[in-house]
This record gives sequence, C-alpha cells and structure tokens, in this order.
Amino acid sequence: MDPNGVAKAFVNHYYTTFDTNRAALVGLYQEGSMLTFEGDKYMGATAITGKLTSLPFAACKHQVTTVDCQPAGPTGGMLVFVSGALQVGEGEHPLKFSQMFHLMPVGPGNFYVQNDMFRLNYG
Amino acid sequence: MDPNGVAKAFVNHYYTTFDTNRAALVGLYQEGSMLTFEGDKYMGATAITGKLTSLPFAACKHQVTTVDCQPAGPTGGMLVFVSGALQVGEGEHPLKFSQMFHLMPVGPGNFYVQNDMFRLNYG
Repeated sequence: MDPNGVAKAFVNHYYTTFDTNRAALVGLYQEGSMLTFEGDKYMGATAITGKLTSLPFAACKHQVTTVDCQPAGPTGGMLVFVSGALQVGEGEHPLKFSQMFHLMPVGPGNFYVQNDMFRLNYG
Repeated sequence: MDPNGVAKAFVNHYYTTFDTNRAALVGLYQEGSMLTFEGDKYMGATAITGKLTSLPFAACKHQVTTVDCQPAGPTGGMLVFVSGALQVGEGEHPLKFSQMFHLMPVGPGNFYVQNDMFRLNYG
C-alpha cells in the first residue's frame, strides 16, 4: 500500500474508533507515546486514553477535510497532517481542527502513534 | 535551551525570514527536505524555496497563535505544530493556517527542516 493509502487508512480507522469506541484508542498508543491536546501534555497510552475518554462530550463526529503525509526519515516513521471539523453534539456547530500524527512502524503495514498534537482552529 | 524555547525561537526565525527575505529560507532546508504546500509536494531546498518565492503575493505577514512541540523520537528530531494567521496584502483579511515542521539536528542547538506541511484553514 502506498504511503498516502496507509495515511488515509490510519486516519479513517483513528476517527471511526474515536467516534464509536473512544477507549479502544488505547491500542494505537504505546508507553512512550505523547499527546499535546490544546496545549496540555500527556505521555503513555493510559494517560492519553484517560484524557481522550474524559473529554466533556459523550458523542462526537469527526469529518476529515484534508490528509497530507510524508515519510519522517530513516526510522521508517510517517507524518500525517489532518484538517477537519468536529461535531460534539446533536445540532451543534462543527468546530474546525488540525491534528498531526507521527506514526512508527511495529510490523508490515502496522503502526502506532508516537506523537499526536491536536488544536481547534478558533475564529 | 528547553525544547519549547527551541521551537519558539525556530518559529520566530522562520516566519521573520519568510516575511522579510523569503529566498533566505533556502538555508533552513536540505536536499532531502520535503514540503507539502496545500497538497502540492516539493523535495529539496531548491525546489522548496522555488515554490515559496513564487507564491502569488510579494509581501506577507505571519501572525503566530500557538506553537506546540514534542521530541520526535530517537533520532533527536523535534516536531513543531503551529497555528496562526497570514496576511498577504495591505488591508486584506488574514487567512488562518496550520503548519507542521519536523526539525532535525545538525549540531548543538542547530536544526534544519526535514518535513514541512502547510494548510490554510478555510471556512
């Protein structure tokens, strides 16, 4: 599968899991993984999933607008840069967001999230 | 200098150079550097700077809103995630943008841009 295909498959899997079974995101992170969410920092799969599952909305829906990707360098990692909109409640106005992932390989076609940075685009 | 300090110093240097002497950005990229600009891909310092200097506006001003950073992993690189606004002409409405950089060390406190992805946040 080409890098763009891998990136799009990951993004689709990530946000579908986020929107349907947020606790299952724990399987995508490892102990050294890092999340910066609206400037707040979390390290390790447990802390990261703890943050994501305690966000102050029960249901949400991510709509992806763009997915860009590049190989990260000699370690075989991949950088994925996403823009989209996030709807956090029935009838609510969607919030625009940008997010970047640094994926590291754990086997053929298999990745975990080493770095994750998320920002809402206000205004 | 702490990683946040390095990231902020880089971001300040990058956008000041962009806004005052765009051709000098060539010194921040190397032959293996990659830029994805609004989905279009460029590789190498010459091609990247060629794209940036041929953007259809002579003067511009970047206003940075947020800077997040994380260590990229064992290679010593750093990931920098920026949101801000870009004004491309006198009296024009600023355009919101998001950009991510993967910086690689070339010496103590010295980095080049290995990966660069830029998107305007429409809407």
